Amino acid sequence: MADAAEPVSAAVLVIGDEILSGRTKDRNIGYIAEYLTAIGVDVREVRVVPDIEDEIVGAVNALRARYTYVFTTGGIGPTHDDITADSVAKAFGVPIDVDPRARAMLLEYIKLEDLNEARLRMARIPQGADLVENPVSKAPGFWIGNVIVMAGVPTIMQAMLDQVAPKLRTGVRMLSQTVRADAREGDVGGPLGAIALAHPEVSIGSYPFMAEDGRPNTNLVVRGRDPERLAAAVAAVEAMVAALAQRK
Amino acid sequence: MADAAEPVSAAVLVIGDEILSGRTKDRNIGYIAEYLTAIGVDVREVRVVPDIEDEIVGAVNALRARYTYVFTTGGIGPTHDDITADSVAKAFGVPIDVDPRARAMLLEYIKLEDLNEARLRMARIPQGADLVENPVSKAPGFWIGNVIVMAGVPTIMQAMLDQVAPKLRTGVRMLSQTVRADAREGDVGGPLGAIALAHPEVSIGSYPFMAEDGRPNTNLVVRGRDPERLAAAVAAVEAMVAALAQRK
Repeated sequence: MADAAEPVSAAVLVIGDEILSGRTKDRNIGYIAEYLTAIGVDVREVRVVPDIEDEIVGAVNALRARYTYVFTTGGIGPTHDDITADSVAKAFGVPIDVDPRARAMLLEYIKLEDLNEARLRMARIPQGADLVENPVSKAPGFWIGNVIVMAGVPTIMQAMLDQVAPKLRTGVRMLSQTVRADAREGDVGGPLGAIALAHPEVSIGSYPFMAEDGRPNTNLVVRGRDPERLAAAVAAVEAMVAALAQRK
Repeated sequence: MADAAEPVSAAVLVIGDEILSGRTKDRNIGYIAEYLTAIGVDVREVRVVPDIEDEIVGAVNALRARYTYVFTTGGIGPTHDDITADSVAKAFGVPIDVDPRARAMLLEYIKLEDLNEARLRMARIPQGADLVENPVSKAPGFWIGNVIVMAGVPTIMQAMLDQVAPKLRTGVRMLSQTVRADAREGDVGGPLGAIALAHPEVSIGSYPFMAEDGRPNTNLVVRGRDPERLAAAVAAVEAMVAALAQRK
């Protein structure tokens, strides 16, 4: 269903007090951003919110109205602070209860006598949602409307994203080419701005870094969906870099 | 000005296409979260937005209305895609121009003949803002209203945060104590929920991890501002963990 004319957008919503307190360092944002970009889905916004129902509901509703997809991570475990599924159900205004399909999945991993009330929380799925399989520890994520709810544990989240990816609508992939300036950012800024103005159909980013020789250097990253326009802008950037090198 | 009764809140706003594309992995969110938590400022929300003026203005205005402080990172360099200062000025509805104090700081690091138009962008400061010194490469951040604008390069951001921290209003520090459950999360979920209900003045988080012995384990983290209430909740959690161990 890819439509070359229409970019496909996404937001990432990270749910969890532990990220906001700094106790746990998020490893999902960068992974999801890189993964989705590579398959032609543009991540346009990320939010991190605490384990508070109103905050989750508010963020889910704000983001699902704006973007093609919303990917959430975290808050689908067996304890009282895992309130993502209930909050997403509330955001959509649908009932939530133990889902027989999800319960059956849990029983592939957990003995019946261990399937206590806490673990059954992990089978609570909003009505109308499709399940997202969890090959690691079975407790599933789910997909409702344009919102995909995944685990916070990186290995499980990554496996869930692999399940979901083939079913996503994707746009034309964003292409990217990096030109090393061999110059300080402040020296490329002027001519680079002129190139950016002359090539509005691509986006050009400038990222300073410290080179191996210990001198300040700059990577210029040109991004766009049309290969010819990308090449034209890259050629302009390369010519500018060559001209700067001549002046040295 | 610390008022024990009133928590001090903050949001972090990360600005940059390179984070959303996954090209650059953010290292600032976790650092700022841990830093502010340690000094008694609660991070309640994080957003990542692209280098698009409307997105930055919208996020700055949404966050500064909700939280005591907003900390931004990124977008204050010398190139056309560095639009944070102009966007923050627009959010506050104030003019922006080259600030003589900021220009003087740049000249501590940059020779006058190198102070081109691109580098002068880094001296553009919204009217009425205080400067935040940059001991690494001199181009300053700034502080306007309750918004603190910092660099995206982690070493510079960290130095700026050190400058700002002593001037922040801080609340009573959030205390935290971790109890290792030596049990699977699904086995502590039930009794832990009861403890959480009985101790509403603390928050209790549950974080599964794989222990050294290769078995699933769980860290229970109790957080609160009142040492006595914290201790009471921790005692209840420890008693629960001991009872679980007995049952094995």
